[in-house]
Amino acid sequence: MNAVGKMLIGLHLGNGYGSQSGAWRMPGVDPESYTSFDIRVKQAQAAERGKFQFIFLPDGPGAVMTDIETESPVFNLDVMMTLAAVARETQYIGLVATGSTTFNEPFNLARQFKALDIMSHGRAGWNAITSSGEDVAANYGRRIPSSQDRYGRAHEAIQLIQSLWGSWGKDAWIHDQKSGQFAKKDQILPINLQGKYVGSRGPLYIPPSEQGQPIIFHAGGSPNAHQLAGRFANVVIGAAFTIEEARAQRNAFRAAAKSYGRDPDEIKYIAGLMTTIAKDKRTALDRRIQLGGSSLIQKFEYLQKMLGIPLDLSLINEPISESLLENARPSPYDPRSSNAFKIARQGWSVLDILAHGVIDYHPVIAGPGVEAADHMQAWYEAGAADGFWISPDVNSDGIDAFVDQVVPLLQERGLFHKEYESKTLRGHLGVPDQYGIDPRV
Amino acid sequence: MNAVGKMLIGLHLGNGYGSQSGAWRMPGVDPESYTSFDIRVKQAQAAERGKFQFIFLPDGPGAVMTDIETESPVFNLDVMMTLAAVARETQYIGLVATGSTTFNEPFNLARQFKALDIMSHGRAGWNAITSSGEDVAANYGRRIPSSQDRYGRAHEAIQLIQSLWGSWGKDAWIHDQKSGQFAKKDQILPINLQGKYVGSRGPLYIPPSEQGQPIIFHAGGSPNAHQLAGRFANVVIGAAFTIEEARAQRNAFRAAAKSYGRDPDEIKYIAGLMTTIAKDKRTALDRRIQLGGSSLIQKFEYLQKMLGIPLDLSLINEPISESLLENARPSPYDPRSSNAFKIARQGWSVLDILAHGVIDYHPVIAGPGVEAADHMQAWYEAGAADGFWISPDVNSDGIDAFVDQVVPLLQERGLFHKEYESKTLRGHLGVPDQYGIDPRV
Repeated sequence: MNAVGKMLIGLHLGNGYGSQSGAWRMPGVDPESYTSFDIRVKQAQAAERGKFQFIFLPDGPGAVMTDIETESPVFNLDVMMTLAAVARETQYIGLVATGSTTFNEPFNLARQFKALDIMSHGRAGWNAITSSGEDVAANYGRRIPSSQDRYGRAHEAIQLIQSLWGSWGKDAWIHDQKSGQFAKKDQILPINLQGKYVGSRGPLYIPPSEQGQPIIFHAGGSPNAHQLAGRFANVVIGAAFTIEEARAQRNAFRAAAKSYGRDPDEIKYIAGLMTTIAKDKRTALDRRIQLGGSSLIQKFEYLQKMLGIPLDLSLINEPISESLLENARPSPYDPRSSNAFKIARQGWSVLDILAHGVIDYHPVIAGPGVEAADHMQAWYEAGAADGFWISPDVNSDGIDAFVDQVVPLLQERGLFHKEYESKTLRGHLGVPDQYGIDPRV
Repeated sequence: MNAVGKMLIGLHLGNGYGSQSGAWRMPGVDPESYTSFDIRVKQAQAAERGKFQFIFLPDGPGAVMTDIETESPVFNLDVMMTLAAVARETQYIGLVATGSTTFNEPFNLARQFKALDIMSHGRAGWNAITSSGEDVAANYGRRIPSSQDRYGRAHEAIQLIQSLWGSWGKDAWIHDQKSGQFAKKDQILPINLQGKYVGSRGPLYIPPSEQGQPIIFHAGGSPNAHQLAGRFANVVIGAAFTIEEARAQRNAFRAAAKSYGRDPDEIKYIAGLMTTIAKDKRTALDRRIQLGGSSLIQKFEYLQKMLGIPLDLSLINEPISESLLENARPSPYDPRSSNAFKIARQGWSVLDILAHGVIDYHPVIAGPGVEAADHMQAWYEAGAADGFWISPDVNSDGIDAFVDQVVPLLQERGLFHKEYESKTLRGHLGVPDQYGIDPRV
């Protein structure tokens, strides 16, 4: 149990196809989803039907990270333009986008996220990250700064942006047509922050939203990430393969929050989960085999390293023999190895082992909805997560499958809310509204 | 006559209230228009009903330039978020926002405008400006660079952004589900531009829109502006008070285009026009008196300087006497002075002279629709403008007044199109589609 009393669920809305690189080729998928805002809106609406607390858009910003010859870019065309479209055509769901503190002017980030907060009536969240990829830096004609400089700038940028968000006081906007007072000038104040990396005088001329101002998210797992999130974030977008790993991460973030004088419950740890939900296990595995295509051969190569045994491609449809498995040594360098070994010992064929998603970015559920519900309940009750961000294999039907086959189980078990109790993201997450500091106090 | 064969009309969509500082207090105006995206969308739809070629959003970015105690900020909350909303709820009208080359990362501008171009199906334009206000620079914790550095960076930024827009070739996106080819990698190429001020490797992972890529606008009147626009722009957002001044500006931009090896017809000069359209002159003047409020007193002070004669506030409802007018010396330092003098000699009261808008940012039409149509026809036929960007006094009813009372007259006179002939901004402006350079040629 966490402070909200129920688990939180977010939808990973990426390139419009889904989390599996073969998603764009699947039957029923519009191959132009990458450029379709209609489809993005429809997917967000599906998540809202499932009462998800938020949708989450990762960003590099702007790198591709795939082989464009056969795969879609992994990121959204533009995360803020997408959320603007979604904001206009949804009512409840929180809208969270990644914005790099490394490659954005803080004033521009502040303005655009606050505008999103206004247009969504208080549903905006900013995933404040640092960018560490040289392919991203190259888009800006630069090299990636040192970790110290990136996090130094991130700390300054978040404080500056939160200050800009609060620079227009809660009750400053009068707009009284009779008296002619538009706003109280003495409650719209410059922030005058100048740091080593960034500065701004302000103020930002945008009044508070229905939740005051956006919420800070962070994604990362390093000690630097713990500190940044511990100081500023209300939500952490996590990545962990086991309950133990997730619980350790969650506790590290909670401890960091405490070290910055905050209540640990103010920070929610959201674990990643990838889903292929189908009526039964066999159907789910077949779907993932269809999705995997040629990438399963690459994964076949790597599976041998994970298990520490040689495998024969011609026997891919056979279980691994008992004698081979006796020699297996799950790699200590990959936290996914023990899961791969466990599934191998259940007697699945090599192809089916791969179809279980033993080699992917997050834990994978490939099976009926109850498997996902059981996984989520186990992690949640073990204190390993306050919630989950879901990456469906294929968005076009994978979001609906989760909404129709997993959400009702979680609701029946009392683990997930049945209705939105609020219309703001802060309301959904149990985070108090935030306004600027009243200069009159 | 210009290259398109008809005049072009754009709507200035600013803070949501209108161009007059008193607009937010007028009857029928929602005092919360500043934060209402519903209202912005409705205003854009009104312009689309009138077959306007584009809406135009100026930006500082982000400064206020008014007395917030009694007036709204002049700019939009965020120009890109507004255009995203408008893009989803209009079908034809072009969408043009100002983006500062001084205070944005070029890659971020490139990505967001191209995403807007995709979501609007080829209706995006970028008004590429340099920022020169110290109040703007203060938002970024910096001082305004020298004019040389600002324009140097602007030249580099526009070339870089156009290159990024063209980095995904016209026919590169295959998305063939059967063959599994997503895109042709050899037609999505890095741009590898590195200048003195900005650089980028790219590519930008966004395919062409229905018009290929966005159009470049520019706003400014200096020799630097002539050069920048002459090199890159298809449209200039102008500001001139007389036919002579506008024609000189237009010719300067055309000459600059020619000096850069372009056909002068490739650059369209769009003059500013502010409108108060009413059933008759008296009603229009009374509306502007109501709108002007206390600001008319400040303008009363300045009118004396423009005319070079002392005026008595107690006689504000009387015409200026013949004997006083004989001593008037219209100020040579303000191009609006001769117009103020002309109106004074027509015998209008001092208050009515002010209500004519003799002191405003652009020429003002306060009267029935035919006055606006006559003004536009005269300027257009004199070669002083290829079109006009209209700033209604109050958006809530001022856009409709223009659409219903001016547009039909222009259409009857054969000066303005009756239907959209295209669905892209390039189509509206007679500018050919633009794609990247095919590396195979």
